[in-house]
Amino acid sequence: MHARRLSIGELAKHLGRSVEGDAQFAVEGVAPLEDAGPRDLAFVRGGKAAAGLETSGAGALIAPDGIDVGRRPVIRSPNPGLDFARAVAQLVPRARPEVGVDTSACVAPEAEIHPTASVGPQCAVGARSVVGAGSVLGPNVTLYPDVRVGSDCTIHAGVVLCEGTQIGDRVILHPGAVIGSDGFGYAFDEKGAHEKVPQVGIVVLEDDVEVGANTTIDRATLAETRIRRGTKIDNLVQIGHNCDVGEDVVIVAQSGLAGSTTIERRVIMMARSATAGHITVGEGAFVGARAGVIGNLAAGKRVWGTPATEERTWLRSMAALTRLPDVLRRLRAIEKKLGIRKRDPEQ
Amino acid sequence: MHARRLSIGELAKHLGRSVEGDAQFAVEGVAPLEDAGPRDLAFVRGGKAAAGLETSGAGALIAPDGIDVGRRPVIRSPNPGLDFARAVAQLVPRARPEVGVDTSACVAPEAEIHPTASVGPQCAVGARSVVGAGSVLGPNVTLYPDVRVGSDCTIHAGVVLCEGTQIGDRVILHPGAVIGSDGFGYAFDEKGAHEKVPQVGIVVLEDDVEVGANTTIDRATLAETRIRRGTKIDNLVQIGHNCDVGEDVVIVAQSGLAGSTTIERRVIMMARSATAGHITVGEGAFVGARAGVIGNLAAGKRVWGTPATEERTWLRSMAALTRLPDVLRRLRAIEKKLGIRKRDPEQ
Amino acid sequence: MHARRLSIGELAKHLGRSVEGDAQFAVEGVAPLEDAGPRDLAFVRGGKAAAGLETSGAGALIAPDGIDVGRRPVIRSPNPGLDFARAVAQLVPRARPEVGVDTSACVAPEAEIHPTASVGPQCAVGARSVVGAGSVLGPNVTLYPDVRVGSDCTIHAGVVLCEGTQIGDRVILHPGAVIGSDGFGYAFDEKGAHEKVPQVGIVVLEDDVEVGANTTIDRATLAETRIRRGTKIDNLVQIGHNCDVGEDVVIVAQSGLAGSTTIERRVIMMARSATAGHITVGEGAFVGARAGVIGNLAAGKRVWGTPATEERTWLRSMAALTRLPDVLRRLRAIEKKLGIRKRDPEQ
Repeated sequence: MHARRLSIGELAKHLGRSVEGDAQFAVEGVAPLEDAGPRDLAFVRGGKAAAGLETSGAGALIAPDGIDVGRRPVIRSPNPGLDFARAVAQLVPRARPEVGVDTSACVAPEAEIHPTASVGPQCAVGARSVVGAGSVLGPNVTLYPDVRVGSDCTIHAGVVLCEGTQIGDRVILHPGAVIGSDGFGYAFDEKGAHEKVPQVGIVVLEDDVEVGANTTIDRATLAETRIRRGTKIDNLVQIGHNCDVGEDVVIVAQSGLAGSTTIERRVIMMARSATAGHITVGEGAFVGARAGVIGNLAAGKRVWGTPATEERTWLRSMAALTRLPDVLRRLRAIEKKLGIRKRDPEQ
Repeated sequence: MHARRLSIGELAKHLGRSVEGDAQFAVEGVAPLEDAGPRDLAFVRGGKAAAGLETSGAGALIAPDGIDVGRRPVIRSPNPGLDFARAVAQLVPRARPEVGVDTSACVAPEAEIHPTASVGPQCAVGARSVVGAGSVLGPNVTLYPDVRVGSDCTIHAGVVLCEGTQIGDRVILHPGAVIGSDGFGYAFDEKGAHEKVPQVGIVVLEDDVEVGANTTIDRATLAETRIRRGTKIDNLVQIGHNCDVGEDVVIVAQSGLAGSTTIERRVIMMARSATAGHITVGEGAFVGARAGVIGNLAAGKRVWGTPATEERTWLRSMAALTRLPDVLRRLRAIEKKLGIRKRDPEQ
Repeated sequence: MHARRLSIGELAKHLGRSVEGDAQFAVEGVAPLEDAGPRDLAFVRGGKAAAGLETSGAGALIAPDGIDVGRRPVIRSPNPGLDFARAVAQLVPRARPEVGVDTSACVAPEAEIHPTASVGPQCAVGARSVVGAGSVLGPNVTLYPDVRVGSDCTIHAGVVLCEGTQIGDRVILHPGAVIGSDGFGYAFDEKGAHEKVPQVGIVVLEDDVEVGANTTIDRATLAETRIRRGTKIDNLVQIGHNCDVGEDVVIVAQSGLAGSTTIERRVIMMARSATAGHITVGEGAFVGARAGVIGNLAAGKRVWGTPATEERTWLRSMAALTRLPDVLRRLRAIEKKLGIRKRDPEQ
C-alpha cells in the first residue's frame, strides 16, 4: 500500500520511540513482513516471527529491542504491532470528505449540523437531529428525526439511524449498519394471532464504539438498548432489544444477542457465538466461536459449544465424540462376553 | 419513555376494560415495573411477577383481577401484556411523516402514488410501481419497476424491493431489508463452470407480514416465493428462492430457509435455526434455537440440534455428551478386568 | 412467468439443439414441470423425474434423447437444466435501465462514467471512480472515491463500494452488499484498551463474480482481499480481511470466512459453514452445511460438523450420539454385574 513519504526519524518521533540506523530513510509504503519491498515499512514481533526477517525485503522495520534486523533502519518498540498501527495511520491517512452539507442532501429545517461536520450526497437528516463537530455522514445515510450524533464520528454510506438514536463521540458505523430498528416483540391477541408490541425505546451507543457493516441493533421496547464505551462489534451481528453491552467488549462477526442480554465489560464473543435472552455474561468472560450461552456465565469463564460448556470439559467431549461408534462396538463385545441380554433392538 | 397525557379512564375505555381507583389519574410515561416512576404506567402479570409490585414506583398499573396493587389506579385485564402493548400504542404514537412525495424523491412518470401515501427523501420509485393509501416509504427506499405496495404499509429507510415484488396491506419492512433479490441458482456449463440460472419469479408478502432489518428474501426462479398473512420475520434472516411460508409463522433472528422450503402455519423457528431445501415443516412445529431441520417434520413436533431431533431425545443426548470422556475411562476399566484385547491404538 | 413469444424452432436454434415435433409452436411462458400450462415451456431430466411428464400440462419441453414426451414439441438436449436456463434468459430478458446518468445522481467531476453505462437515481459516485461500458448502477448505490467497476456489471440498489475497490467485468452485486468495509482489527494500547488498526488495503472482485444481498466483504489491512474469477457468493455471507478466495468457488448463504483464509478453486461451502482464520481449504473440498473448519483442509476432502470432520466419521458419530444415553445405562449394568465400584457421583 502506497504511503505519503515520511522519514523513519519523523515516525519515531511521532511514536515516542528511538531509531537505530539511518533516521533519514524515507518510507513510501507499508506491507506485511513477507511482502514488503525496499521502500516499505514492516514490523516484526519477537520469537519465531523474527525468523521471517532474513528473507524479508522490507526497507525499514519496527521491532523489539534485541532483534537483529541487519543494516536496515529500525524503530525499537516494546509493542511493535501497536506502533505499526499508529505508523500506518500517519503514513496512509484516510481522506475525509469536504466540510459542509452536500447540495443533494436533504436536511430538515429544525436539524442542526455543526459547521465542521460533513453531510454526504443523497443523505436524509430528519427533524431535530444533531450532527456534532467534525463528524462525517457518508453518502446515502439516513437519520430519522431526533437522532443525536456526537463529535468526530464516521457514519458510513447507507447507515440508518432510527428515531431517537443517541451516538457518542468518535463512533464509527460501517456501511449498511441499522441502529434502532424495532425489537421483535409480539403479544397474542384474543384469537391467538401475533399483535405487535410497540417498540418505543431507543438505542444509545457510547463514545468510541465501532459497529460493523450490515449489523443490526434493535431499539428497546420501553427504555434503552445500550452499547458502552469502547466496545467493538463486527459485521452482520444482531443485538436484540433491551441489551446492555459493557465497556471494551468485542463481538466478532455473525454473532447474536437475544433480547435483554447483559454483557459485562471486557467480554470477548468470538465469531458466530450467541446468547439466550435475559442472562448475564460476566466480566472478562470468553465465549468461543459458535458457542451458545443459555444461562448466566460467571466472570472470567471460558466456554465453547451449545449449550456453552467450560473449555476443558468441552474439548474433552469433542475429542471423545468421534470415538463414540467405537464405544458402541466395544460395549457389545463386553455384553456378549458377559451374556448380557441385548436390549437395543437396533443392534 | 415520555408519553402524551392520557387519563387512566380514557385508556381503559379504549381497551374496553374497567378501572379501580382514580380514573382521572393522568399517565405521562410508560416503563417496565421495576423502573417505573410516579407518573408512569406499568403492567404486571399474576403469580411470582406480582412480587415486584411492592417495591415498584409505578403510578398506575394494568393487572389481572385479584392482584393487590395498593392504592394505585389500576386497569383490570385478563391479558395485561396485550393491553399494555395497546396502551403504549395510544400513549406513544409513532410520528408519521407528512403525506406526499418529497421533492428529492425520484418517481417514474408511470408509477402511481396514492394521494394519502408518503414517499420520503431520496427515494427511487420505478416505472409502473404502485404505493397504496396511507403507506409510508422512509428515506432512501428503492422500488424497482412493477412493484406493488398495498395500503397502510411502512417501508423503512434503505429497503430495496426488486422488480415485480407484491406487498399486501399493513406490511412493515425494517431498514435495509431486501425483498426479491435473485435466488442462488447455477447450472454447470459445458466446461464445468457455473452458469447463472435466470431468476425470473417474484416475491409476494401477504397482509400483516413484518420483516426485520437487513433480512433478505429471494425471488423465485420461475414462480413465487410467498410469505403468508401475519407472519413475522426478525433481523438478518435469509429466505431462499421458491419458499412458501405459511400464515402466522414466527422466524427469529439469523435463521435461514434454504430454497423450496415449505413452512406450514403457526410454526415457530427460534434464533439461528435453519432448514435444508425441498422439505416441509408441519403446522405448529417448534424448531429450537440453532436447530437444523434436514427432512420433513410432522405437525406439532418440537425439535433441537442438527440434524434436528425430538426435544426429549436431544436433551438426553446433550446431557450425556459431557459424560462421554468418563464413559471411555470406564469402558477401559471393564475391558481390563475382562482381559479383552485393546483394539483402539490411541489408548 | 410470462415470456415474450418465441417459437420452439427459434429457441432450439439459439441453443444449438434439434427439435422434434412442431417447430412453429409459440412459447408464451416458462414454468416448472408440475405447474406448466399449455403455452409454457418446461424441462425434464431423465430417470425418475420423467415420471412427472404424464400429468404435466406443459405445452413444450426440453428433454434428453429417448424420453417420451407424447405429442408435444420437444428440444432434445444432453443437459436440459442448462438449456432451460438459457431458454429462460431468451424468453424473459431482464429489462435494463436507460443508458446515461440519472439527473438525481451525484457524480464527482473527476469520475468517469462510460457513455454506454447507466447510473440510477440517487446514486453517489466519488472522485476518480470509473464505471465501465454497459455497466449498470441501480438506485441508491454508493461508490466511494477511487473505485473501478469494469464492463457489463450489474450493481444493484443500495450497494456500497468503499474506497479503492476494484471490480472486474460481468460482476453482479445484489442489493445491500457492502464491499470494502474495514476489517476487524485492534491492537491493545498501553492501558489494555482496543486501538483500531487502520485498514488501508482494498477488495478486488475478479470477472464473473456474483455477490448476494447484504453480504459483506472486508478490505485487507494492508494489501488485498481477493475473490477470484467466477466465484459465486450467496446472501448474508461475511468475508473477513485479507481472504483469498479462488476461482469458481461457491459459498452458500450465511457462511463466514475469518480473516486471512485461503479458499482454493472449486471449493464448495454449504450454507452457514465457516472457517477459522489463517488456514487453507484445498482445491475442490466440500464443506457441509454448518461445518466449522478450524485447520488446513486437504484438496478434495468432504467435511461436516465443528470441528470439521471427514464425512464418514462425522455421520457415524452423529448417528451414535442419540444412542449415548443408552450407552450410559448399559455401562452401569455391566459394572454392576462385575462389581466395579461406581466412580461417577452423579449416578
